[in-house]
Amino acid sequence: MTQTTTELCYLTIREAGALLRDGGLSPVELTRAFLERIESLDGTLQAYITVLADDAMAEARTAEAEILRGEYRGPMHGIPIALKDLYDTKGVRTTAGSRVMADRVPTEDATTTALLRASGAVLLGKLAMHEFALGGPDPTCGFPLARNPWSLEHIPGGSSSGSGAAVAAGLCMGALGSCTGGSIRGPASHCGIAGIKATYGRVSRYGVVPLSWTLDHCGPLTWTVEDSAIMLQAIAGYDPKDPTTSHAPVPDYLASVEGDIRGLRVGVPRHYFFADDPDVSKDTLSAVETALGVLEDLGAVLEDVTVPSLAYAGAAQSVIMASEAFAYHQSNLRTRPQDFGEMVRARFRIGGLFTAGEYVQAQRARNVLKRDFAEVLRRVDVLASPTMSNPAPRFDEVDAMSTARVPSFTGPYNLTGMPAISVPCGFTPEGLPVGLQIAGKPFDEPTVFRTAYAYQQQARWFERRPPV
Amino acid sequence: MTQTTTELCYLTIREAGALLRDGGLSPVELTRAFLERIESLDGTLQAYITVLADDAMAEARTAEAEILRGEYRGPMHGIPIALKDLYDTKGVRTTAGSRVMADRVPTEDATTTALLRASGAVLLGKLAMHEFALGGPDPTCGFPLARNPWSLEHIPGGSSSGSGAAVAAGLCMGALGSCTGGSIRGPASHCGIAGIKATYGRVSRYGVVPLSWTLDHCGPLTWTVEDSAIMLQAIAGYDPKDPTTSHAPVPDYLASVEGDIRGLRVGVPRHYFFADDPDVSKDTLSAVETALGVLEDLGAVLEDVTVPSLAYAGAAQSVIMASEAFAYHQSNLRTRPQDFGEMVRARFRIGGLFTAGEYVQAQRARNVLKRDFAEVLRRVDVLASPTMSNPAPRFDEVDAMSTARVPSFTGPYNLTGMPAISVPCGFTPEGLPVGLQIAGKPFDEPTVFRTAYAYQQQARWFERRPPV
Repeated sequence: MTQTTTELCYLTIREAGALLRDGGLSPVELTRAFLERIESLDGTLQAYITVLADDAMAEARTAEAEILRGEYRGPMHGIPIALKDLYDTKGVRTTAGSRVMADRVPTEDATTTALLRASGAVLLGKLAMHEFALGGPDPTCGFPLARNPWSLEHIPGGSSSGSGAAVAAGLCMGALGSCTGGSIRGPASHCGIAGIKATYGRVSRYGVVPLSWTLDHCGPLTWTVEDSAIMLQAIAGYDPKDPTTSHAPVPDYLASVEGDIRGLRVGVPRHYFFADDPDVSKDTLSAVETALGVLEDLGAVLEDVTVPSLAYAGAAQSVIMASEAFAYHQSNLRTRPQDFGEMVRARFRIGGLFTAGEYVQAQRARNVLKRDFAEVLRRVDVLASPTMSNPAPRFDEVDAMSTARVPSFTGPYNLTGMPAISVPCGFTPEGLPVGLQIAGKPFDEPTVFRTAYAYQQQARWFERRPPV
Repeated sequence: MTQTTTELCYLTIREAGALLRDGGLSPVELTRAFLERIESLDGTLQAYITVLADDAMAEARTAEAEILRGEYRGPMHGIPIALKDLYDTKGVRTTAGSRVMADRVPTEDATTTALLRASGAVLLGKLAMHEFALGGPDPTCGFPLARNPWSLEHIPGGSSSGSGAAVAAGLCMGALGSCTGGSIRGPASHCGIAGIKATYGRVSRYGVVPLSWTLDHCGPLTWTVEDSAIMLQAIAGYDPKDPTTSHAPVPDYLASVEGDIRGLRVGVPRHYFFADDPDVSKDTLSAVETALGVLEDLGAVLEDVTVPSLAYAGAAQSVIMASEAFAYHQSNLRTRPQDFGEMVRARFRIGGLFTAGEYVQAQRARNVLKRDFAEVLRRVDVLASPTMSNPAPRFDEVDAMSTARVPSFTGPYNLTGMPAISVPCGFTPEGLPVGLQIAGKPFDEPTVFRTAYAYQQQARWFERRPPV
């Protein structure tokens, strides 16, 4: 692999977009570089389930011709991307990382897939993931497990494991992940990149294999905050095929990153995210404290805030997710249980044990959580915290209970549907990335982006690349 | 009761508002007229659970003084209204029509109560309702049953029975009802008045006793469409205390009623609302056919449309409503079952029998229904149908199963959350009112109002008053 290939593959979307637009870079050349790098590295990283080399080259040639003809579509035109393998792709199998869907070939694109195509993006392939977007890496699921580019012995996070690994390793410029309890922010944090889950209803989920339809969100993982803004722009908006999408107008996200954060009120729910818990990493907390200091240096005003109902978030999340997943998978769990991996099968079956009353109580608790956050967000503009309680564990440290010891730092924003981003905020002494989580008011992605961008530009952690 | 009292009490909100604003009518005089009429008629009609005579007179005097000082607040200032007895009123007992809450005195107003107070409205009292807003009139609930002003032997519809009866009988100028499966449009239809359930999320439900929180809607009942627009304006909008409310901007509803409907595309799902069913009233269908002809005469373009998933709406509605109601009432059902009426107790208990999986499947079916309607609404602007399958039954005709024989004509729009209004469209040979239902796209109340207003102005059924 040449120096040029590496340099091309580590351009940001924004940098590459400027070159592509002005003819300083050909989509064909760029796509070829990514395919070379995938060829060279993905045997080790296992980020891809399916590589679409021929299709991608054809799309790159089309993009090149269009741009040469003066038909430039915008900042995603000619940008090589990849999709978590639960986004439907017409004519290309979409497995959701499970033997249950190993041979499934959709006849239609997901809305987000179609929107990215319309933006002119080049689709390199479909990315590894935890089976059905749940839980940890399970060797019994029948698919290879993606590895963390910062350290191959460590998981890249999940469930969008391939999305995190591929972006961090320079195997695509941006990826879509999906998130039910933290599956975008988690891999972003563990892989040292940015990842945003926009407000519930902001991005269509039509044609995306569901895990838990009141908690599922779609969103991008990229190296930088502005790249996430560009990519979210391409997929955000109302979709008549997804009745849960919002009619709220979509602002200009890339424009929203600019501007300082002087006077911005940043709430910190220390009682939850900085509790004295032996199972939370001191290195993580220390890196995030430093990041909070940077926000203050930039003029933000920090304030401790309390969200009492966070105490019930974990229980509500578990009941809702398991019940909804069970409803979706019920028939396959009965007729072909052997096609599920062991971890997923056990956790889905738990969902069959709840009553409707328990489920509804969980949804009511969730509503209290939304109200508590809405109350806090009358006083502060955003909330800041660690994204994950710990850096990425080693594969041999992961077990079914390892995620259950510590309250989830990402799940509460799936329950509330608030927008939340993870942006790199440093490294542990072992060299594993740590993420800062910024959450905001519903549909106020602009303030979330502005805060994360201001931090990113000051701290510049995105300039460090993994040793692959 | 004097002629003048009757005339005052049958002014519309719009007419009264103009007089109040210009000093041609005093809020005190107007309120006194309503209190007199309540005193005279409500012993028979039983529309009120609580009459707030002294408070109302005090509020009227305040309104009078404000208007005299030039502090006119808007079209609700000095307008005497009443609330279904599940809207919390600070310091005034709020029973939800049940012995379970017979002694409950809220310490805070519902958001809608507070908004109406802020608009300058005068609160005459709290209105009768079916116990906990469910089902039919149940003599075992412990509260008197409101009667239909058009015929005392007939029910006024429910569950906002008192709201329908009070407005139709001129015992208040407008009322708030609540609607989980048709409890605003039903009484409006049966009582020959207008009633709108706005889009789910358009009106706060904070401080309103819930029946089924994903189906519950709040809204006004009034004589005319423009009065509903005025009253909805006062209560619509985002409420941080109710996380299910929308941030979408609130348009000027009163302005939206104006304008013709030439070229408006009106979808008619005949397969569902005009099916050949012996349990649907021919008189109702005939009146609605005539109304559709009026819409055509006004320039609207009628089109038959098909919504396949309407076949599953009834089942989804039942499972969701019962499960959510059970979750809310579970504890009281266990500890004080004797305080529930027989009908409600039986139906709530059914909700305890569903599994979380069944509930989630019902919500998924609901999503398909939303998608089907969204698809149809790409081709048409509104949907028209009968509001109710039959005119109001007699009290002695009502039984637990009488509503179950015919698919609900109102419930589907609770499932989809679409805005839907009922406007009078004629009378049966026996002199019972029939309602036309107009439903629209989410948050497109303006088109719903414009259609209903154009029809109302042409057909003018609102000019006929009941014989009380």
